[in-house]
Amino acid sequence: MTDTDYMQLALELARKGMGKTAPNPMVGAVITKQDKIIGLGYHKQYGAPHAERDAFASLSEPAEGATLYVTLEPCCHYGKTPPCTDAIIEHKIKRVVIATLDPNPLVSGKGIQILKEHGISVTTGVLEAEALELNHVFFHYITSGLPYVVMKYAMSADGKIATRTGASQWITSEEARNHVHTLRNQYTGIMVGIGTVKADDPLLTCRIPNGNHPVRIVCDTNCQIALDSNIIKTAKDIPTYIAYHTCPSEKRQALEQAGAILIQIPLEQKHIDLSCLLKELGSLGIDSILAEGGGILNESLLKTGLVNALKVYVAPKIIGGATSRTPVEGCGVDTLNQAYPFTHTSTQKLGTDILLEYIAQKR
Amino acid sequence: MTDTDYMQLALELARKGMGKTAPNPMVGAVITKQDKIIGLGYHKQYGAPHAERDAFASLSEPAEGATLYVTLEPCCHYGKTPPCTDAIIEHKIKRVVIATLDPNPLVSGKGIQILKEHGISVTTGVLEAEALELNHVFFHYITSGLPYVVMKYAMSADGKIATRTGASQWITSEEARNHVHTLRNQYTGIMVGIGTVKADDPLLTCRIPNGNHPVRIVCDTNCQIALDSNIIKTAKDIPTYIAYHTCPSEKRQALEQAGAILIQIPLEQKHIDLSCLLKELGSLGIDSILAEGGGILNESLLKTGLVNALKVYVAPKIIGGATSRTPVEGCGVDTLNQAYPFTHTSTQKLGTDILLEYIAQKR
Repeated sequence: MTDTDYMQLALELARKGMGKTAPNPMVGAVITKQDKIIGLGYHKQYGAPHAERDAFASLSEPAEGATLYVTLEPCCHYGKTPPCTDAIIEHKIKRVVIATLDPNPLVSGKGIQILKEHGISVTTGVLEAEALELNHVFFHYITSGLPYVVMKYAMSADGKIATRTGASQWITSEEARNHVHTLRNQYTGIMVGIGTVKADDPLLTCRIPNGNHPVRIVCDTNCQIALDSNIIKTAKDIPTYIAYHTCPSEKRQALEQAGAILIQIPLEQKHIDLSCLLKELGSLGIDSILAEGGGILNESLLKTGLVNALKVYVAPKIIGGATSRTPVEGCGVDTLNQAYPFTHTSTQKLGTDILLEYIAQKR
Repeated sequence: MTDTDYMQLALELARKGMGKTAPNPMVGAVITKQDKIIGLGYHKQYGAPHAERDAFASLSEPAEGATLYVTLEPCCHYGKTPPCTDAIIEHKIKRVVIATLDPNPLVSGKGIQILKEHGISVTTGVLEAEALELNHVFFHYITSGLPYVVMKYAMSADGKIATRTGASQWITSEEARNHVHTLRNQYTGIMVGIGTVKADDPLLTCRIPNGNHPVRIVCDTNCQIALDSNIIKTAKDIPTYIAYHTCPSEKRQALEQAGAILIQIPLEQKHIDLSCLLKELGSLGIDSILAEGGGILNESLLKTGLVNALKVYVAPKIIGGATSRTPVEGCGVDTLNQAYPFTHTSTQKLGTDILLEYIAQKR
């Protein structure tokens, strides 16, 4: 087995923490001695031991002289747990192989420096691109303080998200709808507009067994959400943020009593200022948001320039209609060079549908 | 080399006739003797020798005792050329391998029967699916008498074909726009509505070197097309059909003098009846049509139930806008089970864009 093979295994272990580690990254670790695996570990959830310590806890024999493969540079500072560099030194590891440096300015490069000072050989950059991709949310959040925003919608092959009468359940196949739940499991928050809440009365939960429900964020400028909506009825069980500008104090009290967390946000052209809301959500520790809004919320989000990725489910049917709902509405851009640019990254077939994935280009 | 290998070669030869053989099929032929190729041929263009005769003309040695691979059952009737079965018998071919039977009721199965009556061994069904796909237009046209209709549009990732101000040049990349010319080369006719002619004044030609310009069909209920439009100015060089309902006689005469062919079509809800037009075009020998219309023509075409395939170019950008143009407009369907159903057949990346290809499901 090569360094790459062991790092691949460490990445697979890291992935097992998906949905549980935020705002920490997913990290995996493999310990080998004479080409034999003697320890495996990963960061299982926020607050649990780091991957390195989890691997040390699993050792089948002493780690003296062993090689440690870890997907992220070991930390050298006190957080919820003591520095991993201490544990590596104590266990007399001979060589450390790292996929990617830590982007956190508190740690970046310092972990490696400490290891080297203790005579440990360090190799970096093994499967770096894969490790960056795995923790794209963490890297974005730690460097910007803003949530990683993923816009998602399901449309017909002619770009409609509902018929002219508003019918939208279901445009896509069961396989595509199930796939959405893997996204809900992956990202920390889910955002919708009050229009979607009124139209569909959704729960916005993750229906994967043992999956994580995302925290729910409703953009609701005038606090119109009904106390008997499914979201408010379950607000004691699943964190629920109502981002509003104006709300009568009785309604506010009633919502708070039901478990909702109200965030007052300034206005921007008659709606809450979404740039402001995203900063606020970032400061609350929400590192990522899946935006499942309609055409109006989607356009407002794009205007902030803070959308990072786009996932488009395309169903093999045509709905038609000049007034049927489309994924991004509002005014739209006037000229094509003003269009919001994305880069296509992957395509996959889900049942009868196609999922097109994009990342936003910097403008 | 196996039968499949030789038939694959015959199919590749057949494909060289693309755009030149309509309303005949594309056909390729390979002649082998003791595992050595002694003749190759294909149907080069309408009116030219059939593939079998083209292969016989290329023989490097006598074909007695040889095997003939041909992608379509040899004809046994007099058309523009004498029956190919005669030539096969004359050349004392020992064995004939055929990909697919001829769907033409004048020939189907009869060619094989004649060959067998002359003691020739016949194998059928080798690479049949590929041969059917290659000549899907021919098979559809010969059995229905109607052109094979391919709807094509280019849209943003949010389903817009123009901004709210009408800007549409260009939504897709150069690679995608070049690919459209391979479609124009492949299909016999190209159809647009008068709206597109007024907005873009297009030529609708095929810009592939040595490619075939499709015949142009403009749906123009009230004969509004301008005499100085690019289409009418070139109507003497490229066949141009104006499908209309009402036209002053002077305008009609002027258009005809400019080289256009006028086809009067009954009305159906204020527009020309497209079912009627498609039947008329079929009877004129137009076996296939690439519909490059806007949202209104597209919806009218879908309503006829005569659209066979759909090609959607998706650009990696978002245009937005509640009033921006979308690929299929009109009223659209009311409920999702009324949506026009398609089956996804392939996806390809063209430059920065994605091409999604579909065939229509029978309703």
